[in-house]
Amino acid sequence: MKSIRQGDDGLAHIINLSFDFYDIPSGEFRHPSPPPPPPGSEEEERWVWAQIKAEARRDAEAEPALASYLYSTILSHSSLERSLSFHLGNKLCSSTLLSTLLYDLFLNIFSTDATLRSATVADLRAARFRDPACVSFSHCLLNYKGFLACQAHRVAHKLWTQSRRPLALALQSRISDVFSVDIHPAAKIGKGILFDHATGVVVGETAVIGNNVSILHHVTLGGTGKSGGDRHPKIGDGVLIGAGATILGNIKIGDGAKIGAGSVVLKDVPPRTTAVGNPARLVGGKEQPRKHEEVPGESMDHTSFISQWSDYII
Amino acid sequence: MKSIRQGDDGLAHIINLSFDFYDIPSGEFRHPSPPPPPPGSEEEERWVWAQIKAEARRDAEAEPALASYLYSTILSHSSLERSLSFHLGNKLCSSTLLSTLLYDLFLNIFSTDATLRSATVADLRAARFRDPACVSFSHCLLNYKGFLACQAHRVAHKLWTQSRRPLALALQSRISDVFSVDIHPAAKIGKGILFDHATGVVVGETAVIGNNVSILHHVTLGGTGKSGGDRHPKIGDGVLIGAGATILGNIKIGDGAKIGAGSVVLKDVPPRTTAVGNPARLVGGKEQPRKHEEVPGESMDHTSFISQWSDYII
Amino acid sequence: MKSIRQGDDGLAHIINLSFDFYDIPSGEFRHPSPPPPPPGSEEEERWVWAQIKAEARRDAEAEPALASYLYSTILSHSSLERSLSFHLGNKLCSSTLLSTLLYDLFLNIFSTDATLRSATVADLRAARFRDPACVSFSHCLLNYKGFLACQAHRVAHKLWTQSRRPLALALQSRISDVFSVDIHPAAKIGKGILFDHATGVVVGETAVIGNNVSILHHVTLGGTGKSGGDRHPKIGDGVLIGAGATILGNIKIGDGAKIGAGSVVLKDVPPRTTAVGNPARLVGGKEQPRKHEEVPGESMDHTSFISQWSDYII
Amino acid sequence: MKSIRQGDDGLAHIINLSFDFYDIPSGEFRHPSPPPPPPGSEEEERWVWAQIKAEARRDAEAEPALASYLYSTILSHSSLERSLSFHLGNKLCSSTLLSTLLYDLFLNIFSTDATLRSATVADLRAARFRDPACVSFSHCLLNYKGFLACQAHRVAHKLWTQSRRPLALALQSRISDVFSVDIHPAAKIGKGILFDHATGVVVGETAVIGNNVSILHHVTLGGTGKSGGDRHPKIGDGVLIGAGATILGNIKIGDGAKIGAGSVVLKDVPPRTTAVGNPARLVGGKEQPRKHEEVPGESMDHTSFISQWSDYII
Amino acid sequence: MKSIRQGDDGLAHIINLSFDFYDIPSGEFRHPSPPPPPPGSEEEERWVWAQIKAEARRDAEAEPALASYLYSTILSHSSLERSLSFHLGNKLCSSTLLSTLLYDLFLNIFSTDATLRSATVADLRAARFRDPACVSFSHCLLNYKGFLACQAHRVAHKLWTQSRRPLALALQSRISDVFSVDIHPAAKIGKGILFDHATGVVVGETAVIGNNVSILHHVTLGGTGKSGGDRHPKIGDGVLIGAGATILGNIKIGDGAKIGAGSVVLKDVPPRTTAVGNPARLVGGKEQPRKHEEVPGESMDHTSFISQWSDYII
Amino acid sequence: MKSIRQGDDGLAHIINLSFDFYDIPSGEFRHPSPPPPPPGSEEEERWVWAQIKAEARRDAEAEPALASYLYSTILSHSSLERSLSFHLGNKLCSSTLLSTLLYDLFLNIFSTDATLRSATVADLRAARFRDPACVSFSHCLLNYKGFLACQAHRVAHKLWTQSRRPLALALQSRISDVFSVDIHPAAKIGKGILFDHATGVVVGETAVIGNNVSILHHVTLGGTGKSGGDRHPKIGDGVLIGAGATILGNIKIGDGAKIGAGSVVLKDVPPRTTAVGNPARLVGGKEQPRKHEEVPGESMDHTSFISQWSDYII
Repeated sequence: MKSIRQGDDGLAHIINLSFDFYDIPSGEFRHPSPPPPPPGSEEEERWVWAQIKAEARRDAEAEPALASYLYSTILSHSSLERSLSFHLGNKLCSSTLLSTLLYDLFLNIFSTDATLRSATVADLRAARFRDPACVSFSHCLLNYKGFLACQAHRVAHKLWTQSRRPLALALQSRISDVFSVDIHPAAKIGKGILFDHATGVVVGETAVIGNNVSILHHVTLGGTGKSGGDRHPKIGDGVLIGAGATILGNIKIGDGAKIGAGSVVLKDVPPRTTAVGNPARLVGGKEQPRKHEEVPGESMDHTSFISQWSDYII
Repeated sequence: MKSIRQGDDGLAHIINLSFDFYDIPSGEFRHPSPPPPPPGSEEEERWVWAQIKAEARRDAEAEPALASYLYSTILSHSSLERSLSFHLGNKLCSSTLLSTLLYDLFLNIFSTDATLRSATVADLRAARFRDPACVSFSHCLLNYKGFLACQAHRVAHKLWTQSRRPLALALQSRISDVFSVDIHPAAKIGKGILFDHATGVVVGETAVIGNNVSILHHVTLGGTGKSGGDRHPKIGDGVLIGAGATILGNIKIGDGAKIGAGSVVLKDVPPRTTAVGNPARLVGGKEQPRKHEEVPGESMDHTSFISQWSDYII
Repeated sequence: MKSIRQGDDGLAHIINLSFDFYDIPSGEFRHPSPPPPPPGSEEEERWVWAQIKAEARRDAEAEPALASYLYSTILSHSSLERSLSFHLGNKLCSSTLLSTLLYDLFLNIFSTDATLRSATVADLRAARFRDPACVSFSHCLLNYKGFLACQAHRVAHKLWTQSRRPLALALQSRISDVFSVDIHPAAKIGKGILFDHATGVVVGETAVIGNNVSILHHVTLGGTGKSGGDRHPKIGDGVLIGAGATILGNIKIGDGAKIGAGSVVLKDVPPRTTAVGNPARLVGGKEQPRKHEEVPGESMDHTSFISQWSDYII
Repeated sequence: MKSIRQGDDGLAHIINLSFDFYDIPSGEFRHPSPPPPPPGSEEEERWVWAQIKAEARRDAEAEPALASYLYSTILSHSSLERSLSFHLGNKLCSSTLLSTLLYDLFLNIFSTDATLRSATVADLRAARFRDPACVSFSHCLLNYKGFLACQAHRVAHKLWTQSRRPLALALQSRISDVFSVDIHPAAKIGKGILFDHATGVVVGETAVIGNNVSILHHVTLGGTGKSGGDRHPKIGDGVLIGAGATILGNIKIGDGAKIGAGSVVLKDVPPRTTAVGNPARLVGGKEQPRKHEEVPGESMDHTSFISQWSDYII
Repeated sequence: MKSIRQGDDGLAHIINLSFDFYDIPSGEFRHPSPPPPPPGSEEEERWVWAQIKAEARRDAEAEPALASYLYSTILSHSSLERSLSFHLGNKLCSSTLLSTLLYDLFLNIFSTDATLRSATVADLRAARFRDPACVSFSHCLLNYKGFLACQAHRVAHKLWTQSRRPLALALQSRISDVFSVDIHPAAKIGKGILFDHATGVVVGETAVIGNNVSILHHVTLGGTGKSGGDRHPKIGDGVLIGAGATILGNIKIGDGAKIGAGSVVLKDVPPRTTAVGNPARLVGGKEQPRKHEEVPGESMDHTSFISQWSDYII
Repeated sequence: MKSIRQGDDGLAHIINLSFDFYDIPSGEFRHPSPPPPPPGSEEEERWVWAQIKAEARRDAEAEPALASYLYSTILSHSSLERSLSFHLGNKLCSSTLLSTLLYDLFLNIFSTDATLRSATVADLRAARFRDPACVSFSHCLLNYKGFLACQAHRVAHKLWTQSRRPLALALQSRISDVFSVDIHPAAKIGKGILFDHATGVVVGETAVIGNNVSILHHVTLGGTGKSGGDRHPKIGDGVLIGAGATILGNIKIGDGAKIGAGSVVLKDVPPRTTAVGNPARLVGGKEQPRKHEEVPGESMDHTSFISQWSDYII
């Protein structure tokens, strides 16, 4: 059986590249049986939405001061995409970009693109099961700026691919103002992404982020200035990037790699290895870097490198 | 006589663990005699509020364009907790969390908890006397996002301890959106705290911060992901943490310690020592780290380590 | 002929200390001939404004959902200073600092100070020609929080020099809240500045920034706490400071110098040298640091140090 | 037994000068037994508030789209005065008179003046039992602009009597803007008042309105211009004033009198008589006007005059 | 050929019970040929929407200061119902009833009920061709509070018939606050209605208004208080009701009748007759009232009664 | 010496066609000597503005809760037109017509048209000296919706004469929404106008209003529908129109005439006569109507007709 270890909001998070069913964190909030439907299915989308409504209903009953907020954002809506579009529209609006316009825009795109909705659900799952501080799906939906910024980016990216670039850039600007998360609308981002805390994240125009990636706050995926073309990092599946890490240039961070907090990475990082420091070095050395196990989402001990690396610290 | 040296917004701040009376920075704004009442007393709360009103009145007279702002936020209120509740309510409100609701919530909690009010006063004092850029108490009350985020966190923490967790989390989310300061409501924070500049500060769920601590912007007190339980740093009294420092895991930063800007700290730091670098090392070496004097808030030369450390820089 | 190389949003940007005419990036948006008027001239201001209106008109036609935004922010205005004052007033207003008040304040200062307007144009030019992700002048004017924060700072600085300090500080606070950019109003900033991405930038009270400087996000120009007087960095002309760099104390970063991403700089950096790392070291060594060419804006290869520096990384 | 006849929104309403217990209109909404406490008692205030909460809870369950509104205005509050202060604060606020300021003002006055609260309850009762279109107490509390304008006036009047006249006049102005109801804050208004529909009502400075009065929309209680002193009408207890009636000068409308819709009244109207027309005449003639019965609130047939008067109409 | 005579904003308006094609008022704004499609057809809806967009485009080009308004309300929308829902949502929203919620509600109902859309188009036509001050369809759509109140009422009425009464009543309240038009959601209103100026209009719960009715401002369709049941006026097709008229009780105003300004009507008015005065009398006398011609919408001279009536005035 | 008699908010107001200096009402607020400058002079404009500032300063000191309002609307401004433009911009703005846009528009027009500013001052004087309830100039400037609607109309009229008709109509719509005052932008209005209470006032497209006219609430200057051309009333100088009066058609109300409250006027009213009733008749009879004295603004007893008229009332 595959057990899920809770990641955290610091250097390292468990990367669950795949899992068969939802392991529930041993927190105070528990989900009702039976087990949820398989990830990515339409049933799952409905199941998650039902969970969110149940959570919000419970919270509204327990906390009348929050009930208005919960009804307007969740309980008055008939679907996850309506709730999310409403919430994003109200969060990202300004006096010159009205909430009604944004709501309409978000709803139109979420309603017609099942891939986006599926990514949203995967992102909710990522926060819920990787972050021990995430007590419920609704907590993530309402309160996680990284989650909200990512969903808004998905819409901006869709607009970008439809050649509606000025609108996509205006959206990027609002996301950066409101959430302090600056993702270029051209950047490609996979599913199951956790932007934890998220403040200060910068993702450049030609960056690519794979599936099931966890990225902490203050992380930069920037360019080197060498050229105007393809100039930003490519992040593989299942990568974990610690707080404050700066990754620059058209380099490749291999699947399942880990980047330590505060690292400055300017060269490729092989799959399942760990890079730390400023400038970043591979744990175990450049020639024979220490490799993680085959299925990092299941068994990898994502903190072992600290003991190695920290031999010479303090 | 104990003289206060002004700290600053960079690497190091004077840590005033205690002082008998207020030494006035040699800035342009001076307080009227007689000397203020002892810190922590009820008299002090009244005295600080009287100072704030006097400052605001002076500024309103000098600058009519700001008078409306000063009257609505300070001069129309009968007490510090009303002013602060009003200001926080208007800063943190959104279209789905109304200012009136938040004002009510803040006022209710500040009015009934003298400990919170006392902490607020200590925080005002910390900014006023440690930061040479802080020209008045009212400047801090109105304009310091670190101060405001900290006061709002104190309310969120109170809600958390009352098991009103969804409301506490919603508040955390608003603080993170508005101030780019993300403090988990469960985190325990002492008195006399200065979050200087504050943008990007992240404090995890099980973190503890002592009294008279100064924390610069971009500082992370994060987890390691090893476990879902007690997993965040414990910061002692009188600690100074420089800009961009990342402190991860359930480690202990001893009383009066200093963490250099940009450091990545993964192990305990003994009291009255200085840790710098990525990964962080103790100034003076692991075995015999250089120790600060007995009463750092009075006499310590908080910049001496730079000359040591910087022997090999540049 | 002098060719402009596009800089980027990561470690390094071209520093165009001077150029005779505008080289157009080979992007999708092209300017009409004839060549623009000389930088700094009144003709240039009119020319840039005409460009902005043309861009906005094109975008409004192509994207009706954005037309309202473009008309209210740009197309309804008769001059760049009116458009900018309107946009800043609406961005920076709060429930206690009304947009009309701020609009009035900005317009009054921009209208009466040609130097500020000239700096604004130079900043627009800096973004447009150094950042390959900047597709148009209007894109920068509307969406670049670094640009907007810088223009609002210029007004706050003007107020500061007029001894309208409480208003200047209130403006600083709003800029920090809205854009997560915290620049003390006393700080002196030259022309042709690019704050790229900008989230988390902190610039202290006695800092000075020269002309044609590019500063990435998360950069700190902070104090050391040694004294309450002149205590922040002095940045020369044409300097490039990478993401997350922390520069502390009254030190001098020479003209045309480069600071690597994530560096912690505590000592002077000579002109046309490169400092990297935590703590920062000069590329090429302290004694004989590698020097850039005479005219960095024209010929310098701003990425060569990476290969040197990165010899020992990963 | 005394039966209550439902009044209506046109010419005439039942005037319930007194009644022992609440007769329930035969509408779709019924109150639970047992019978409510006696009017004016503290028990009644609690009972009405309990009714309002029960109604709101029922509506919130039935209509999720309205639940957010009902929670924020009613269900999140612990008392009627908090709910009313919140609702009025949000209705009457403007960009220059913030909701938090008004909320604070209303709450302070309602909390400390039991007479006002008692009048509020009597007004709720008046709407609920005189207007067949009023389906519940909460319907009146939330949606009746006449009710809300009257409660806000009660606060403005209190401020007037405390010599806080500029604030009282500012409040009058907001009430007139928002509800199109213009009542001078010096006007004295009794309990159990129904301002039905309310648009266009004008009540002058020295007007006095007794208890249990029903006033339809477009009614003017104006002056004659003869003098600057006592120059407005005095309305007795239990009077009914039809839509569009204009009553001018320091004249007396006797207890239990009725004024027909569209009448222009310039002279005294004796108790329990009916005045109609432009200029108004007494039904039955000046010398021997037709008199209503002794207790109009119980048995009077408030429409009989129409048949008399309308003998010569159409 | 049937010519359309322009009605006006005072006592009388042409009542166009039917017409075959649109006669254009000899104003400054002219419609392009070819003739519009037949009233009530789907083609007409598209034609009117195309007209509105053309008008808005012309105005946006001529008046940049208004372009933002025109784009956000009209030009950014793909259909009349979207434009109308957006405009109503933004007009009627409050801090406790968000624009996004109302927009969603309006759009949902307008999109799914072709009858409502058809009534909207007929109302636009009524304003455009009866009111000489109405220069364009877009003028009516954007600026006529009577039109907007009527469309919002149509939605409230739909909600009422769906037993969503609390929501319908909340909408009524918002319409009354914002437009000073108070129409009970149960009232039945036909097509082709012109509420001219509209301030102060009150329409009771059991009132019925036929097709092609024109109602000026300050008009009351009220009850008599006799009973809680069917107690409000029934207005026939093609009726014209002058400013300030008060019509009370379950009485019948016959098809094509006219009610003079300021009249108080308490009894039935036969078809094609005119009632004037307070109390109202039939022009020509009760026994043999002067009758209008057969097809009032085409040929009636709606002002002839003035000469008759005014024989004895002044 | 000419004494001013206070008019009132009901049927009749003193009409001050001219006066040499300001007589102060015997109210509680007194102006400082020396006597004000002559009406219409530039000195008067400055004098009134100085009065307003002094009043606001006094009120701000006495009432801290209102000080923010007074500073933002009056005390922070350097001129009457700035204060008025700010106040109107904030009152009339909506989510689609921003306050900054309106402020700019108002300020531009008031600044460049001395005639408008002079009319504003005359209107302030009219309210201050005719309405005993008007305690100060600032009271009128801030709180009188009739005054504010009239000033906004003056701007809309200016736009209309500049052929900026769509913008003028949009402004009319906002004035009607916010103040319930509906004045067609083409209507011509003189100086020294008092719209008292103002709710429900309607003034048609071709109406003309002379100087020193007082118009109460609910007054209609409407058309007859006879034609699309010149079809609205022409109101002479010094006319007084009582509450709820309806005046229809291209008729002439002579200089110094009075119209009783609730009258319906369809024919010319000779100068210095009084018309009352529905339909209106001249007091004294059609053939030999009772004439007022030569200079009504000085000596006329504007209430004498009541005794005459009311001989047969009640």
